[in-house]
Amino acid sequence: MSNSFGKIFKISTYGESHGLAIGVIIDGCPSGISISSEEIQKELDRRKPGQSKITTQRKENDKIKILSGVYNGLTTGMPISLQIKNKNQKSSDYKHISNSFRPSHADFTYEKKYGARDYRGGGRSSARETANWVAAGAIAKKFLNSLDININAYVSKVGKCQIDIDYKKLDFSKIESNIVRCPDNNFANKFIKIIDNARKNKDTIGGIITCVIKGCPVGIGEPIFNKLHAELGKAMLSINAVKGFEYGSGFKGVEMFGSKHNDKFQINNGKVSTKSNFSGGIQGGISNGEDIYFKVAFKPVSTIMKKQKSINNDNKEVIIQGKGRHDPCVVPRAVPIVESMAANVITDLYLQSQ
Amino acid sequence: MSNSFGKIFKISTYGESHGLAIGVIIDGCPSGISISSEEIQKELDRRKPGQSKITTQRKENDKIKILSGVYNGLTTGMPISLQIKNKNQKSSDYKHISNSFRPSHADFTYEKKYGARDYRGGGRSSARETANWVAAGAIAKKFLNSLDININAYVSKVGKCQIDIDYKKLDFSKIESNIVRCPDNNFANKFIKIIDNARKNKDTIGGIITCVIKGCPVGIGEPIFNKLHAELGKAMLSINAVKGFEYGSGFKGVEMFGSKHNDKFQINNGKVSTKSNFSGGIQGGISNGEDIYFKVAFKPVSTIMKKQKSINNDNKEVIIQGKGRHDPCVVPRAVPIVESMAANVITDLYLQSQ
Amino acid sequence: MSNSFGKIFKISTYGESHGLAIGVIIDGCPSGISISSEEIQKELDRRKPGQSKITTQRKENDKIKILSGVYNGLTTGMPISLQIKNKNQKSSDYKHISNSFRPSHADFTYEKKYGARDYRGGGRSSARETANWVAAGAIAKKFLNSLDININAYVSKVGKCQIDIDYKKLDFSKIESNIVRCPDNNFANKFIKIIDNARKNKDTIGGIITCVIKGCPVGIGEPIFNKLHAELGKAMLSINAVKGFEYGSGFKGVEMFGSKHNDKFQINNGKVSTKSNFSGGIQGGISNGEDIYFKVAFKPVSTIMKKQKSINNDNKEVIIQGKGRHDPCVVPRAVPIVESMAANVITDLYLQSQ
Amino acid sequence: MSNSFGKIFKISTYGESHGLAIGVIIDGCPSGISISSEEIQKELDRRKPGQSKITTQRKENDKIKILSGVYNGLTTGMPISLQIKNKNQKSSDYKHISNSFRPSHADFTYEKKYGARDYRGGGRSSARETANWVAAGAIAKKFLNSLDININAYVSKVGKCQIDIDYKKLDFSKIESNIVRCPDNNFANKFIKIIDNARKNKDTIGGIITCVIKGCPVGIGEPIFNKLHAELGKAMLSINAVKGFEYGSGFKGVEMFGSKHNDKFQINNGKVSTKSNFSGGIQGGISNGEDIYFKVAFKPVSTIMKKQKSINNDNKEVIIQGKGRHDPCVVPRAVPIVESMAANVITDLYLQSQ
Repeated sequence: MSNSFGKIFKISTYGESHGLAIGVIIDGCPSGISISSEEIQKELDRRKPGQSKITTQRKENDKIKILSGVYNGLTTGMPISLQIKNKNQKSSDYKHISNSFRPSHADFTYEKKYGARDYRGGGRSSARETANWVAAGAIAKKFLNSLDININAYVSKVGKCQIDIDYKKLDFSKIESNIVRCPDNNFANKFIKIIDNARKNKDTIGGIITCVIKGCPVGIGEPIFNKLHAELGKAMLSINAVKGFEYGSGFKGVEMFGSKHNDKFQINNGKVSTKSNFSGGIQGGISNGEDIYFKVAFKPVSTIMKKQKSINNDNKEVIIQGKGRHDPCVVPRAVPIVESMAANVITDLYLQSQ
Repeated sequence: MSNSFGKIFKISTYGESHGLAIGVIIDGCPSGISISSEEIQKELDRRKPGQSKITTQRKENDKIKILSGVYNGLTTGMPISLQIKNKNQKSSDYKHISNSFRPSHADFTYEKKYGARDYRGGGRSSARETANWVAAGAIAKKFLNSLDININAYVSKVGKCQIDIDYKKLDFSKIESNIVRCPDNNFANKFIKIIDNARKNKDTIGGIITCVIKGCPVGIGEPIFNKLHAELGKAMLSINAVKGFEYGSGFKGVEMFGSKHNDKFQINNGKVSTKSNFSGGIQGGISNGEDIYFKVAFKPVSTIMKKQKSINNDNKEVIIQGKGRHDPCVVPRAVPIVESMAANVITDLYLQSQ
Repeated sequence: MSNSFGKIFKISTYGESHGLAIGVIIDGCPSGISISSEEIQKELDRRKPGQSKITTQRKENDKIKILSGVYNGLTTGMPISLQIKNKNQKSSDYKHISNSFRPSHADFTYEKKYGARDYRGGGRSSARETANWVAAGAIAKKFLNSLDININAYVSKVGKCQIDIDYKKLDFSKIESNIVRCPDNNFANKFIKIIDNARKNKDTIGGIITCVIKGCPVGIGEPIFNKLHAELGKAMLSINAVKGFEYGSGFKGVEMFGSKHNDKFQINNGKVSTKSNFSGGIQGGISNGEDIYFKVAFKPVSTIMKKQKSINNDNKEVIIQGKGRHDPCVVPRAVPIVESMAANVITDLYLQSQ
Repeated sequence: MSNSFGKIFKISTYGESHGLAIGVIIDGCPSGISISSEEIQKELDRRKPGQSKITTQRKENDKIKILSGVYNGLTTGMPISLQIKNKNQKSSDYKHISNSFRPSHADFTYEKKYGARDYRGGGRSSARETANWVAAGAIAKKFLNSLDININAYVSKVGKCQIDIDYKKLDFSKIESNIVRCPDNNFANKFIKIIDNARKNKDTIGGIITCVIKGCPVGIGEPIFNKLHAELGKAMLSINAVKGFEYGSGFKGVEMFGSKHNDKFQINNGKVSTKSNFSGGIQGGISNGEDIYFKVAFKPVSTIMKKQKSINNDNKEVIIQGKGRHDPCVVPRAVPIVESMAANVITDLYLQSQ
């Protein structure tokens, strides 16, 4: 396995969905950053289950505890250990998959790769792991905010319904004003309805999250192999259920001519910028000072409440039906995850560039 | 900078576009693999400039030399040093950008990040670097072939014209039968025409490459953070001009319901497989034995033969015009690059899983 | 900071001496290894304070808890999180050094490097950290024992008194039979007396630990830069208070002629071995199948009960006197630490060689 | 294998003793450092064979070539590729060991670990590799000199003859004034005589090199696991023929009492220093501003001109006799190697601490 991410600001995680606890160690966080468990908790609460009618109804309180690395409210430069004890697991909800493999889940591949497997709640393959990332990301965000670097993500597509407004015309302060985390209320309502319909049909649906990073200075990113967008892409593709990543002009950019796609430089009051930003704020793997923006595609959640044919570990056919409490669509709760992983990446590359 | 890729099968590269030489060291290649410089050269020739009317007309012979790690035709387990001497550079073609920044190139960000800059041919930011990746990939491919793992990539979209045939119905043996590297001759001709038109208009155009990996056994990929698709994504996003990556159902998958998207297991003659493959051969970051397939989006090349406004290092406006010999579309020559980076990733993760 | 050790069997640690808890994550432990918290506890008890009259009289129960990575008594291949809650700290014993620097301690350098500092109990620089290493080492030992690789360390010198018996003539089963951990009772008594005298004089004294690894197969160690002895050396030099490392003939070997120092091969019953073993079981950085043996030098503990002149953070002279409960000599409790770090190294390199 | 060293200032090496070339890539060297191939060559000439009557009489010109990363005499921040073509190899001198194993060499362990083996000149296990380290170290030294950090090593013991003068009383400017590289002419003559006698007896002898680093600022070194002395130790133990490493009081320190061993702080003109320096300039793994000093023990060279019994790959006994041209004692030529590896370590940790 490989449970560490980052080079300087490095996070290492552990924990199974229904084990005793999950947690993350941050090694390489600069000293002198003010941080409290309340600030971390606030981010975790944006990710927590049971927050609205369009998320899973599981209740996980996810109370964060800082075990090391912070003294008198300041980071000390020592490894920061953050821990969440597991509570309210209903492991009995998973007995039926102790020997069976849910379609499009990691049950089958984990069993074949590792043999001994903690199947309860999906074990280590559960998206519960992402709570660790959000906890670490809360500290990264705190660090970046002190540098006036701000990261905002929002839901921009659910099913076939896609927002048709440029991100520059959206008011990010409204992202948290609705339960689907979309800054445009009109589209928010459409998204909520689509998700709710899927839920009523015992089905699930996919979506897209757009993320915008403002204030990143010129020079962040380490070519050749740790390019800024390659690190962002890897981080996003690490999130459960993600199937695609694009930045700047993305897949649409392939249809353009170079003469149109090129971002011309301009100088205003002695400051260099570009007139367009198809580059997405990154050239040659290094930030150029413009907004960095990218999109992340999430597939529909695999666990559905309908009956499905599947197989068990003895290669016999079985019928499987989702029990318990699951999300009909992952994107509303994935917004803070996308932001946090982006924050972890930018912090790490920022520190590498010093 | 960060010029190494991989954990066990690790490649480290060097070299500027117009310096004395470029090269790659492969550390961690198993001993006992039969390899010759001719086999590496064959892959390099697929990438080399000047190979057809729709690529740059630069002549770079790119002769590979094996300096270490191979003895009596077999790898010895020692680091393999591969080197290509630079020839036929026309550095004078680049004098005009010694102090100016080409739009949407890495000139500006490299200058701001590193200061002292070898501008000739784009220096280290040039796509010439990818010759190193193809050279390493030729050895990775040799290793994978001995395990019956095969990797094929082809051009599936140019501009707005996209192939509408499932990859399973294409004959990969025809990929090299035309200059654009598309296994369907009908679409190949369309693609060539679009590229040729762009070239005649002194412009450039983007495209998409699809890659298919067959024969990968169950169990390759290292969750949580080195998931198979995350490593593939990072590798692809490292390639010059890439703006997006998706695997399996990709961005289209967000529009689907879970009940449709889930890949049901089936058993044929005691062998487990899935009826559909929206997962793209990967579940939980680990290969499940099905075909792995993904798409890579390339933007239009930045260097165009038209005049463009730009700025120089003194923040003055200048007029820039592409000189020399450049590709009107990058995808025909990028096919072996995509294959090679995929081979480097699979080899590395395969060795990690042993 | 850099709080991780190892490449495949990788340990990452956290925790300050007087914080809430200390802990270690092991990433890369193979699945299917039988392990219980009792087995880990047994090793920790060999390291724990207060175990005899010649160690510190602090009482630290150091109860280990397995938080993840073990299910039904077997490792699962997932990261193993081990945690020890801190109890019985007397932070008041350290008030006097909140703004002063103890001579030959890390107080001064941590203050200058990190600024914000948790001075209580030495914070992160405390040897309490080594409990994490012993916990991880208990699992590594379990793995190695299944391969018939056994590691034994013992005290071979205290002050000027050095054992003059070859390790091959010692009975390692007697190491735990006395409080100083020396398999020869005669020398054990001498060592105990020396330490006890130092303690009575409110002083401290140094010592040497010898470690022997038996059963290591041929081929372990990764030249050029992760040579077996270089990794062992780095691991030992990471232990608090260590000033030197030598293996095989060591510093004495420099006085020998090559004709004498060379270990001649011999064949017994078709099995290759060497007549002498000045190489210490390692040639070219790779194990050759002979016993691996090395020595580790520990300086006298810095905290003494006598008054000492020192300085504070305002560059003023102060008088400092050790309070609390400290070891008069570190080596009796360091024996399991040396063994554990050796086990961590051998396990990691063994897995790298597969 | 593992052929890379360092985290930020990272060197990756390749090449067999009798292959086409050896070389090193430096990744992570800051931009803007003035460097010429002549400056690198000067360091290499201190290491080169055939420099005096007490070294091997092989003639290896070892001409360094800079292939990348330097433009207009300045480093550009891009990877620096340095290469030495192999010349004057007499591979026929090694035919006799193509199937036999020289005692106390790496022949046996490399054969068993890797199988296919380039035996010529010892292949990859040859100390010829250290020329790469000296080449990289020349650039590291250049960087450190600009920070007023200076590194000097010298021979302090040969066979049983040890210099009895404190390093502070030696004039390092005289190190290069004699062929054995000892700043005291009296001891230099003794050392030369001992080596010459060994050579005349067709034998070899060991020695010790002392290294002193002056001007290192407070705060260099990354606890817990990349402590300054642990990194130095690992680097030194990577050098061929090294059997031991100690810093500060070293193995002698174990005999001391804490009250004597503790380095008391003092303040002179507002500057903090310590009265004694048994710590060797390092506390808690971090430099404290005092001189850093350490000793490295080298065993006698394994290749002797006398006949020795040995075995071959078929487990048959054979008689082996050193042919060709070998060093009777490694320390005179190892002085620049010790300095270079120290420079590589300090540069890497310095950059990590920024």
